[in-house]
Amino acid sequence: MNVGFIGLGLMGRPMALHLAEAGHALHVWARRPSSLAPFRDTTARAHVSAAEVARHADVVFTMVGDAPDVEEVIFGADGLVSGLAGGVSPRLTLVDMSTIAPAAAQEIGAKLGARGIRFLDAPVSGGEVGAINATLTIMVGGEPADFELVQPLLAVLGKSVTLIGPIGAGQVAKAANQILTAVTTAAVAEALNFARKSGVDPGRVREALMGGFAYSKILENHGQRMLDRNFKPGFKAWMHQKDLRIVLAEAHRLGLMLPNTAATAQLFNAVVGSGMGEDDSISVLRLLEKVGGE
Amino acid sequence: MNVGFIGLGLMGRPMALHLAEAGHALHVWARRPSSLAPFRDTTARAHVSAAEVARHADVVFTMVGDAPDVEEVIFGADGLVSGLAGGVSPRLTLVDMSTIAPAAAQEIGAKLGARGIRFLDAPVSGGEVGAINATLTIMVGGEPADFELVQPLLAVLGKSVTLIGPIGAGQVAKAANQILTAVTTAAVAEALNFARKSGVDPGRVREALMGGFAYSKILENHGQRMLDRNFKPGFKAWMHQKDLRIVLAEAHRLGLMLPNTAATAQLFNAVVGSGMGEDDSISVLRLLEKVGGE
Repeated sequence: MNVGFIGLGLMGRPMALHLAEAGHALHVWARRPSSLAPFRDTTARAHVSAAEVARHADVVFTMVGDAPDVEEVIFGADGLVSGLAGGVSPRLTLVDMSTIAPAAAQEIGAKLGARGIRFLDAPVSGGEVGAINATLTIMVGGEPADFELVQPLLAVLGKSVTLIGPIGAGQVAKAANQILTAVTTAAVAEALNFARKSGVDPGRVREALMGGFAYSKILENHGQRMLDRNFKPGFKAWMHQKDLRIVLAEAHRLGLMLPNTAATAQLFNAVVGSGMGEDDSISVLRLLEKVGGE
Repeated sequence: MNVGFIGLGLMGRPMALHLAEAGHALHVWARRPSSLAPFRDTTARAHVSAAEVARHADVVFTMVGDAPDVEEVIFGADGLVSGLAGGVSPRLTLVDMSTIAPAAAQEIGAKLGARGIRFLDAPVSGGEVGAINATLTIMVGGEPADFELVQPLLAVLGKSVTLIGPIGAGQVAKAANQILTAVTTAAVAEALNFARKSGVDPGRVREALMGGFAYSKILENHGQRMLDRNFKPGFKAWMHQKDLRIVLAEAHRLGLMLPNTAATAQLFNAVVGSGMGEDDSISVLRLLEKVGGE
């Protein structure tokens, strides 16, 4: 299949390479030409614009920053839609894997639908390691028929691919994922900092709790990294901060209260404000250590 | 061995019965005679006071409410200490399995130490089911030699028994456990309520997230019970509220901030204040549903 990929950063680059290795004709474009370097010795074809990618591909993946970036790549000058005759296409399917607001995904989906273009939101979790090992969790929103069309491609990228519901539902699941991962990370940091400041070995506490009801993948992995004081990303604190901003904006729109998510978002604001934004999100531990206790 | 057990409630009763079944000579006393009924057809010997239990047992377990209850059973009129000649004993070991403040455990340990009485704090997690199935996680604080003495008894009650550190360290680990279980429960409730109020099936969201980094035992078990709307305890909301009060009092004493624990404690205050204190702690979901969203 002719597959386009736009957004060749830490996540997108290994994902695009997996698609090429799976035998698909890969079409890429990047704002910065340096992002195309890893594709020089592959079968991938580099184009001069997103518009050119849209002319050659049947399915185009986008993996960029936030909603304005997605909209620019799709609807902007030399964007994907500008590459289509009359701005319409019964052939093209767009799959946005960026993390954006559910409402933004729905709006994009509606605008594309009016042009005959299929759209799915398919944000991922699992980070750079998941992208490299093709073990991502992919949460998809869209029409079942459109999902079937792209499922073989998504299966190349992740180990768990689930159609959650209509367009936007993938982003809702991703938001739920970010609530759980952010709040649990903060809870593990609070628990281990509490133990240490109480004069008790946090490693022994973690060990005792791992076998019980408090077990989480985050206690296992992030907990160990906190003990090792390994703050290398992983998933950068500023990215988690950005995702929580999206979740809290949605909560505001829906008129919901998310008190733990809000408390955690405040911590991430302070992590970034303390100059740890480029470090892993487990840096929330260092923030808690900084303030209070001996 | 002659083993005493005081505090024959939902947790203590099955635990004491396990000790009798393991072949130990069990000595029990209860404030309310009705609590002794389940022991009528066993080899257990019922006594008229805690003091009498102390006269007959080498190791006495207490599993009561909060610190004042523990102190009453140990130091009160007709309490354990009053049963000892001169209020001292080189023979007796007390093991408190209640959840109380680390500082309270240290104070009790110091007072008992002055009387030659060994003391360990050994709070548990795993709830009534864990007590019945003898699969509790037991977190112990005390001297290594004292721990060795009671380890065979604790092994009868739990599947994971860990000496965390000196007296009080078991309570610190339990506090860390309650931080993690309470905050993660609230986070799962926030995530599933967010999904539902966004118009997305929370069951599909949970399913998609289970395979990824957001996995926790609480997402698996409590998450499913939230979907089933099974609010039967389990672990009662007012008990989690009480445990969080202990944790936050310790944070106050240590001069630490625990923002997520604090946010969750507020939710539990409102759960109890809304008349759901006797229901399971997952009732935090119903509280979030009550306020806001469609």
